[in-house]
Amino acid sequence: MTYCLAIAVEDGLIFCSDSRTNAGPDRVSTYSKMHRFSVAYDRSLILLSAGNLATSQAVITQIQRDLEEDAKFNILKARYVADVADYVGEINVREQAKYTASSAPGAGPGFNATASFIIGGQIKGHSQELYLVYPEGNHITASEIYPYLQIGETKYGKPILDRIIRPDTPYETAMRCAVVSMDSTIRSNATVGPPLECLFYRNNSLKPHERYFNLPEHHPYLAKLRQSWDEGLRDAFDKLPGFNEVFADDE
Amino acid sequence: MTYCLAIAVEDGLIFCSDSRTNAGPDRVSTYSKMHRFSVAYDRSLILLSAGNLATSQAVITQIQRDLEEDAKFNILKARYVADVADYVGEINVREQAKYTASSAPGAGPGFNATASFIIGGQIKGHSQELYLVYPEGNHITASEIYPYLQIGETKYGKPILDRIIRPDTPYETAMRCAVVSMDSTIRSNATVGPPLECLFYRNNSLKPHERYFNLPEHHPYLAKLRQSWDEGLRDAFDKLPGFNEVFADDE
Repeated sequence: MTYCLAIAVEDGLIFCSDSRTNAGPDRVSTYSKMHRFSVAYDRSLILLSAGNLATSQAVITQIQRDLEEDAKFNILKARYVADVADYVGEINVREQAKYTASSAPGAGPGFNATASFIIGGQIKGHSQELYLVYPEGNHITASEIYPYLQIGETKYGKPILDRIIRPDTPYETAMRCAVVSMDSTIRSNATVGPPLECLFYRNNSLKPHERYFNLPEHHPYLAKLRQSWDEGLRDAFDKLPGFNEVFADDE
Repeated sequence: MTYCLAIAVEDGLIFCSDSRTNAGPDRVSTYSKMHRFSVAYDRSLILLSAGNLATSQAVITQIQRDLEEDAKFNILKARYVADVADYVGEINVREQAKYTASSAPGAGPGFNATASFIIGGQIKGHSQELYLVYPEGNHITASEIYPYLQIGETKYGKPILDRIIRPDTPYETAMRCAVVSMDSTIRSNATVGPPLECLFYRNNSLKPHERYFNLPEHHPYLAKLRQSWDEGLRDAFDKLPGFNEVFADDE
């Protein structure tokens, strides 16, 4: 499994991803799931991937090949980020079909070749955009009220996003929220793990990114963050209104 | 769906459950999932249920019938809570089989009659015990390091439990943690909803319970709790160590 998320605030776009892949407990490995395609002052595009690793690698390879071979359409020729989302969706469907279509030689029940993607960024002359591309190839953008998207193991890290993330959340708070959402998932689910990557693209900058970091498993910052967050949560519990007013009875 | 959890701390046992049931978006209803079987100063037993509503209702009905008919074995004749867990498991398997065994007249693919239970409490002369009963009828107890059990929609509310709950957590903190875990799940998943029930059984008291409350959807306490928790989380974010030391570059 995997956990990736992206947040669209007025300040810009935040992307965050784990790096663990597993195909059973004895096939655990580490791969980056954050792929960057940028040309300074023209376009900045970030792609996050989750799901079947063979499928997501095949999709990334095709995107890169289309760039190298200057294909009729590639990421650098797209006019809108939505066009890139369509393109990623088409490649995704095609790659999955190679192994799951009824005519595929390796097709069998129980095999899951699906992959999902988040694509976001900005192309010169247009607003920043953010999309989630489904295994079926179609895509959605983030909600205006809760402006974030997730792929992979999404549930553990969702409550903190629902409580904190709004369109006007400052980018540093949104980055912290993304890292805490990721850390919560890493702690609660063994199939999601560090290194943890986080990137901030500032709206209208058209720079590849403004902030980026990569935290490996034993990075002292992760330990400090966990301790600080645990203490902060305990303080928040201590400040919660007491239950006395709601107790129905003391037997 | 449903979300129920129970926590075993040195102070005693905490039980918390939502009340929403749904069989599709136009079949949403409200049922208590907390069932209490107690005889003061002899035994205090709490049962939480999740899964197929027909199955869990049939299990509760059978337990009550065995009490009324003074069956050879019933909840009041059990010597250990583990025996009650075995008994609940047996009834659960039997009730599911009525509708899913290959010989069952209504059996069909895609129908899911499974239910899970949490049973906990104390019987005079023994320690407090807590078990999760699977649809297959077998059961586990809580981890010694992370002493909680969950059934139903478990992922959203797990991170806060993993961060806070330890065997020596005071019961009021554990109750607050249970309510926040429940509230996070309610906010992030539409199939889990109030009223929210919470009960505290004090270890070795053998009283039915020491604390109990039931919070309906628009209870002012829930609104206060949410606001206080949101503010506490924001404070916790503000206190997190800054990212400056980890940024790889500023482009």
